[in-house]
Amino acid sequence: LDVSPSAEARVLVINTGGTIGMMYHNNVLCPEPNALVKALRKLHILHDEQYAQQTKLYEYYEHPENTLVLPLSKQNKRIVYTVIEYCPLLDSCNMTTDDWAAIGKDIEKHYEKYDGFVILHGTDTMAYTASALSFMCEHLGKPVILTGSQVPIYEMRNDGRDNLLGALLIAGQFVIPEVCLYFHHKLYRGNRVTKVDAGSFNAFNSPNLAPLANAEVDIKINWDTVWRANTTAKFRVNTQMNRNVGLLRLFPGITSETVRAFLQPPMEGIVLETYGSGNAPDNRADLLEEFRKATERGVIMVNCTQCLRGSVTTSYATGKALSDAGLVAGCDMTPEAALSKLSYVLARKDLTTQEKKKMLSHNLRGEMIADLEGAKLTLSDS
Amino acid sequence: LDVSPSAEARVLVINTGGTIGMMYHNNVLCPEPNALVKALRKLHILHDEQYAQQTKLYEYYEHPENTLVLPLSKQNKRIVYTVIEYCPLLDSCNMTTDDWAAIGKDIEKHYEKYDGFVILHGTDTMAYTASALSFMCEHLGKPVILTGSQVPIYEMRNDGRDNLLGALLIAGQFVIPEVCLYFHHKLYRGNRVTKVDAGSFNAFNSPNLAPLANAEVDIKINWDTVWRANTTAKFRVNTQMNRNVGLLRLFPGITSETVRAFLQPPMEGIVLETYGSGNAPDNRADLLEEFRKATERGVIMVNCTQCLRGSVTTSYATGKALSDAGLVAGCDMTPEAALSKLSYVLARKDLTTQEKKKMLSHNLRGEMIADLEGAKLTLSDS
Amino acid sequence: LDVSPSAEARVLVINTGGTIGMMYHNNVLCPEPNALVKALRKLHILHDEQYAQQTKLYEYYEHPENTLVLPLSKQNKRIVYTVIEYCPLLDSCNMTTDDWAAIGKDIEKHYEKYDGFVILHGTDTMAYTASALSFMCEHLGKPVILTGSQVPIYEMRNDGRDNLLGALLIAGQFVIPEVCLYFHHKLYRGNRVTKVDAGSFNAFNSPNLAPLANAEVDIKINWDTVWRANTTAKFRVNTQMNRNVGLLRLFPGITSETVRAFLQPPMEGIVLETYGSGNAPDNRADLLEEFRKATERGVIMVNCTQCLRGSVTTSYATGKALSDAGLVAGCDMTPEAALSKLSYVLARKDLTTQEKKKMLSHNLRGEMIADLEGAKLTLSDS
Amino acid sequence: LDVSPSAEARVLVINTGGTIGMMYHNNVLCPEPNALVKALRKLHILHDEQYAQQTKLYEYYEHPENTLVLPLSKQNKRIVYTVIEYCPLLDSCNMTTDDWAAIGKDIEKHYEKYDGFVILHGTDTMAYTASALSFMCEHLGKPVILTGSQVPIYEMRNDGRDNLLGALLIAGQFVIPEVCLYFHHKLYRGNRVTKVDAGSFNAFNSPNLAPLANAEVDIKINWDTVWRANTTAKFRVNTQMNRNVGLLRLFPGITSETVRAFLQPPMEGIVLETYGSGNAPDNRADLLEEFRKATERGVIMVNCTQCLRGSVTTSYATGKALSDAGLVAGCDMTPEAALSKLSYVLARKDLTTQEKKKMLSHNLRGEMIADLEGAKLTLSDS
Repeated sequence: LDVSPSAEARVLVINTGGTIGMMYHNNVLCPEPNALVKALRKLHILHDEQYAQQTKLYEYYEHPENTLVLPLSKQNKRIVYTVIEYCPLLDSCNMTTDDWAAIGKDIEKHYEKYDGFVILHGTDTMAYTASALSFMCEHLGKPVILTGSQVPIYEMRNDGRDNLLGALLIAGQFVIPEVCLYFHHKLYRGNRVTKVDAGSFNAFNSPNLAPLANAEVDIKINWDTVWRANTTAKFRVNTQMNRNVGLLRLFPGITSETVRAFLQPPMEGIVLETYGSGNAPDNRADLLEEFRKATERGVIMVNCTQCLRGSVTTSYATGKALSDAGLVAGCDMTPEAALSKLSYVLARKDLTTQEKKKMLSHNLRGEMIADLEGAKLTLSDS
Repeated sequence: LDVSPSAEARVLVINTGGTIGMMYHNNVLCPEPNALVKALRKLHILHDEQYAQQTKLYEYYEHPENTLVLPLSKQNKRIVYTVIEYCPLLDSCNMTTDDWAAIGKDIEKHYEKYDGFVILHGTDTMAYTASALSFMCEHLGKPVILTGSQVPIYEMRNDGRDNLLGALLIAGQFVIPEVCLYFHHKLYRGNRVTKVDAGSFNAFNSPNLAPLANAEVDIKINWDTVWRANTTAKFRVNTQMNRNVGLLRLFPGITSETVRAFLQPPMEGIVLETYGSGNAPDNRADLLEEFRKATERGVIMVNCTQCLRGSVTTSYATGKALSDAGLVAGCDMTPEAALSKLSYVLARKDLTTQEKKKMLSHNLRGEMIADLEGAKLTLSDS
Repeated sequence: LDVSPSAEARVLVINTGGTIGMMYHNNVLCPEPNALVKALRKLHILHDEQYAQQTKLYEYYEHPENTLVLPLSKQNKRIVYTVIEYCPLLDSCNMTTDDWAAIGKDIEKHYEKYDGFVILHGTDTMAYTASALSFMCEHLGKPVILTGSQVPIYEMRNDGRDNLLGALLIAGQFVIPEVCLYFHHKLYRGNRVTKVDAGSFNAFNSPNLAPLANAEVDIKINWDTVWRANTTAKFRVNTQMNRNVGLLRLFPGITSETVRAFLQPPMEGIVLETYGSGNAPDNRADLLEEFRKATERGVIMVNCTQCLRGSVTTSYATGKALSDAGLVAGCDMTPEAALSKLSYVLARKDLTTQEKKKMLSHNLRGEMIADLEGAKLTLSDS
Repeated sequence: LDVSPSAEARVLVINTGGTIGMMYHNNVLCPEPNALVKALRKLHILHDEQYAQQTKLYEYYEHPENTLVLPLSKQNKRIVYTVIEYCPLLDSCNMTTDDWAAIGKDIEKHYEKYDGFVILHGTDTMAYTASALSFMCEHLGKPVILTGSQVPIYEMRNDGRDNLLGALLIAGQFVIPEVCLYFHHKLYRGNRVTKVDAGSFNAFNSPNLAPLANAEVDIKINWDTVWRANTTAKFRVNTQMNRNVGLLRLFPGITSETVRAFLQPPMEGIVLETYGSGNAPDNRADLLEEFRKATERGVIMVNCTQCLRGSVTTSYATGKALSDAGLVAGCDMTPEAALSKLSYVLARKDLTTQEKKKMLSHNLRGEMIADLEGAKLTLSDS
C-alpha cells in the first residue's frame, strides 16, 4: 500500500445543490441536505476508507468529517477531497448573480490550499454559472470544474458517480487553468457549453469548440485546446457583476412595443439572439429605431445567433443593419457566455462605453474564437 | 424518349426569396429578382430543354415562361414544375405572419392543379414558417416542402441545387401529406425542425423526431414516421393568426420588471423558454406572481425547454411551480412550433381560454409526441 | 418496504468471462475466478442486502450463495438474479463454436425458471457470439442479453456496473424475445452489431438497424423495431454448427493462390468481404475461376461488404461477376452475422445445397432487411 | 473580369475511372471513356468558357482540348485544370499495385508543372490507393487529392460535381503536402481513411484522425493536423512495392490449416486483423505455432485491430501472445494503410528483417500516431 503523502493531491468540492444530491419527496425531486458525504463514504469507487485509516488521513487534514479519499488512480495518485455543502442547497433554476459570487469567493478563499476545485451544481443553469465564473476568475492557475448529473446519485441507475469521479480525477491530476464543465466522459471549456438535452446523460454540448479532454478507457487531454492566459498576475475573483442585463430572442412578428418594454431602464445591456449568422429584420424601421435609441442612451447590445452552432458575420444586408444600429458582434459566443460577459464588463466602472464595447468584442477567456479573420482561410501564397 | 404525359407530375415552386436566390452587391448578399428561372433553365440537372421541345411542353402548360422540367427520374417520372416568384423577394428575417398567410393562400389557390408544392425560403426563419404553415394547412393531402440554401445557387460551391432538386423529386413522387422541410439530403417534419448551424450545409435538425426521408444514393422514405391525419375533410388554409404572441427565454437574474414589461398588453400569449425539463425559479415569488397575474387576465403561456432536445415534465419542484401558475406544458415542441401553434390557437374566437389551453396541450399536426405517458415505458406484464 | 413476491422478476446471469471480471496481474489483464458475486454483493446499486434479509430471499431461492437482488426499480419491480460462472473463465478471444453451444445449452436448461438471461462476455468476440446465439435459439420467447465492459468492474472508473445494471433491468422487465447486446446505454439486436471502437466506452455499433432501446434518464423501448417471430413453436437450442467456415477479406492484388489456399477442403463455406456494395474484380479470370470451382464443388460463399454500413447490390459489373460465379448476396448482414448464419445453415444435413443457399438469402432472425425490394423505394402512385 | 495570369493555379486531374464517370448499360454501371471532359465543359460550376475565350487560355496551355478553368474562386483565384484519362478506365475493384505505380509515375512526370493533383478514382479501393500513394510519394511538397463519387456525374442527383469541385479548389489553393482524400465536404489524410458506407454520400471516415479540412459554407483548413515532413529532399516516387502481402481477419474457430494455407510461400508479409486492442487466442497453441513459424522464416506480420476505431496495445494476455510470437504492433493504422506500408517496406531490399520491422513500427507519413506513449496521458507534475 502506497502511503506516501507526496502522491496526494487535494481537491475542494463545493456542493451548491442540483439533481446529483436530490431525493424524491412526493414524486418531486428536492435537494437533500447533509446526505451527500455520508453516501459517498459508502461508495468504494469514491472513497477508500482502508487507506484513510492506515494513513491516519483524518488526523492530518482539517474537516475530517467532510474529507474523503479516492482509490489509487492509474497515475498512482491519491485524490484527497473535502466537501463543503451550501445551506440551503439550491436547485440551479434558483441561482442568481449572488450565488455565482459566493462560489467565486469560496474558490478564492481556499485557492492556495487545494490543487483543484469541483463545483457540484444543477444542470439547468450550469452553463450560465460556468460562463460567469470564467470571467469572475481572473488569472486562474488551477482547474475549476463544474459537474452534476441528470439522475440523483442515490438512484440505482445514475450518472452522478461517474461525473463526480471524472471531475475529481481531472481536477486533482492535470493543470488545466480554466473554468471547465465535466459531463458524460467529456471535459469542456465552461464558457463554451450549453445544455442541449433534457433527457439524456449526454446533456451538454460545446458547439464551437472541441472538448478539452475525453475520459474513455483512458483520460486524454487535448492540450492544444487548453487555454493559457499569458499572465503571471495573482489570481483573484472579481465578483462585481451588473445585474441589469437580459437575453432577448428575436422571432417573426416581434413588435417594437415588446422590444421597447424589454429595453427600458434599468436595463443596461442585452444579448440579442438573432437569426442565422447574426441577422435581424432590416425593413423594420420601428425595431431598428428602438435598438438605435437604446444604444444611444448607453445600452450595450451584443449580437449572438440563436443557432446552436456558428458565428455572427456581416455577409447579409439584414446583419449589417444591426451593426449600423450600434450592436457589438458576439462572434461565436454562446448566449450564456455573452450574457455573463456583458454582466462582467458592464460592472467595470473605470471604462467608457466605447471601451466596454471593445472589451466585449475581444476574447478574454477563450469564450470566442481568438482571431476571426485568421480562422477562416489561410491561402497558400497570398 | 419517353414522352407519355401520364408519367408527368406537377409541382408548384413558390420562390419567396432567401439566400438560394441572392447575389453579392458590395460584398453583401441581397435578393436578386427575375433571375432564378433563367439560371435554372441553364442547369441540366434542373431542366431538360430537349424533352420540353420534343413534347411541346410549353404549349401544353400555362405560364410556359416559368415552367421547367426535370430529367427523367429513377422512378421513370418527369417532374414538371412552375415557378412563382414573390415581388419583392424577401430575406426571411423580414417575414411576418402576413407573409405566412400569403404563402398559405397561394397553396390553397393552386392546390388542385399540382401534385406537390416546394417553397423556396431563407433559412433564418424557415423553421418558423414551416411550423406556421403546418397549422394553417388544415386537412392537407399533398406534400408542401420548404427548402433553400446556405450559399446562393449562383455561387460555384453551393447547396441550392441539391436542395431544390431533392425537394422537387420528393414533392412530385411521394404522397407525404405534411408540411416538410428538406435540407442536406434529409426530409424533416416542418414543425419539428430548428436551425442549428449558421455555417454548415447541414443547417437544420429535428431534435425530437427522426427524419421522414433520407435522400442518399437512393431516396428512402420512413413511412412509419409520416403523419396521416385521420380525416377526409376538404383541404383549406386558415390564415387567422394572432400576432400578439411572444417568446421569452428565462435566464438567471431575470427581473420581474422585465417579465412584467414583456407580458403587458396587448400580449395575449407567450412561449416561455425554461430550463431543462421545463423548470423555472420556484423561490422567486415576484416572478411567479407575474406569471400568475398574466394567466389570470387570460394570457396563455406555454412552457417549452430552452434545451435543443427533450421534453418538459413535472419531476422537479421548480417545474411544478410553473404548472401551478397556470402554464401549459409544451411537451417536446420546438419554440418555433409552440409560438406558431399559440398564434393559430389564439386566433380561434370560437373557443374559451380553457378550450384553447386544451388544444395547445394536444397533438394537432405531429408537432409533439402523441401520447406522453405511453411513450416513456411499456412494461412487459403490467 | 414492498416485499410482495409477485413484484419479482428472475434473471439468470451466465458469466463466461471477459474484461468485466478481469484483474491486473503483472500489468496484464486476466480473468479472476470466484470474485464477481462477492464484488457485486458490496455494490448498493447492484444488490440490496436489506431487502434480501427482510424477505428471506436466500431461503426461498436455490443457489442462495449466487443469488442477488437489485434495489426497487422505477417500475416497482425487484430483479432477483442468480450468477452462474464458467470454469475456467474465458477471454472472449479464446471462444469457439463449442463455447457458443455451451451457453445455448445453459439457456435451454434454465429457460423455464427465468424471465430473462444476461450473458457476461468479453467484448472482442461478443458480436460473433451474439450472432451465433441468435441462430441457435429457435422460437425464442424471452430476452437473452449479452453484455460486458471495456474496463473491469473492479477498477475505479469502469463501465461494467452500468452495463450489467442496464442489462438486468431490461432482461427482467421487458418481453423482448431476441438475442440482444446491451452496451453504453443502448440495446441492440445481437446479430446486427459489430465492435467499432477498441478504446471508448461506446464500443459497439449497429450500422444498419436502429437500437432496440435507449436507456438514458428513462428506458425507452423502440417497440416497432423489436423482432417477433410469427411462431408458437416451443423454444429450443440447436447447437449444430458447421466449423468449416471462414471469413476472407478482398484486397487489391490478392492472388488466386491465396484464394485457392483459403478455399481448399475442408472449407465448406466462406463469407467473402467484398468492396462497396458487393464488388470484386471482374477482370481477374483467375480469381473468378477459383470462386466458380469452389461453388461447383459445393462450397457456399456469401457476399458481404467490408464497409461498416450498407448493403450488397448488383448495380455494378464488378458485383454481377460474383453472383454469376455462384455467390449468395449477403444483403446488409454484418460479417459476424453472415459467418454464424453460414455455420448454422451448413449444419442442416436435411437440406440440399440449393435449399441452404435459399435459406442464407432469407431473413431468419432479423439479421438482414426483410424485403430488399420493398425497402428501397415506395412510389406514391406506381 | 480579372484576367491576370498570376492569379491562376494549375491542377492536373488524373481520371483513372470509377463511378464518377460511369454510365448505365443494361442496368449495370460501366466506365464511359472520352466523356468526362465533354460533360465538364458544359457545367458552369466546373468550367468558365467565357474566361477561357477572353484570356485565350487554349493558346497558352498545352493540351487545350483537355484543359478547363473554374469560375473565379472566393479567394480570387482561377484554377486551370487539365484532365488525363486512363485507357481503359478502371473500376477500382480491378486496381492492382501496377495501377498504383502508374498513378505515382504520372504525378512524378508532371510534378513541376502543376500546383496540385486530383486523382479521380472509384470509391471501392480508394482508401487502399490513397494509402499506397502516401508511401510511394517520398518528400512530397504539393497536394495530391483522391476523389470520386457514389453516383455518376451524369446522373441528376449526384455527388461527383461537388467532390471534384472541392478537390480542385483545395488542390489549387492550399499547400497541403500530403496524399489526401476529399469526399462529402471533408478532406482527410489519405492513409487514415476507410470506406464505411456503401449507400451514403458520406462514404468515408478517418476513424483515428480528425479531417484536415472542412469545406462547408467556407473552406477551413485545420493547419495543426496537416503533416509536414521535416525534409528538404527532392520529391520522388518509389514504385517498388512487394506484392506478396495479404490481409487476414481473425474469427472464432479459425483453423490452423486456414492460417497455414494463408501464410504459405510466396507470402512475405501479412496484416493480421485481430480483435479489440490487438488480441488473438492465447490458448490456441496450434495457431500461435503457425504465426511463430512464419515469423521465423521471415514473414513479417503486422497486428491491426478489426475495430473501426482504436489502437493495438498490450494490456491483455491475449494481446501479449502475439507480440511474443513476433508480430509488429500496428498501432492505430487502418488495415488499408498497414497493407500498403508493408508492401512498401518489404520492397526495400537494402534493409534487414529487423530494420523492416522497425520501419513498420515507426510513423512514416502520418499514418499512425507519432508517439504512442506521449499521446495517452500527460500528468501535471510527473
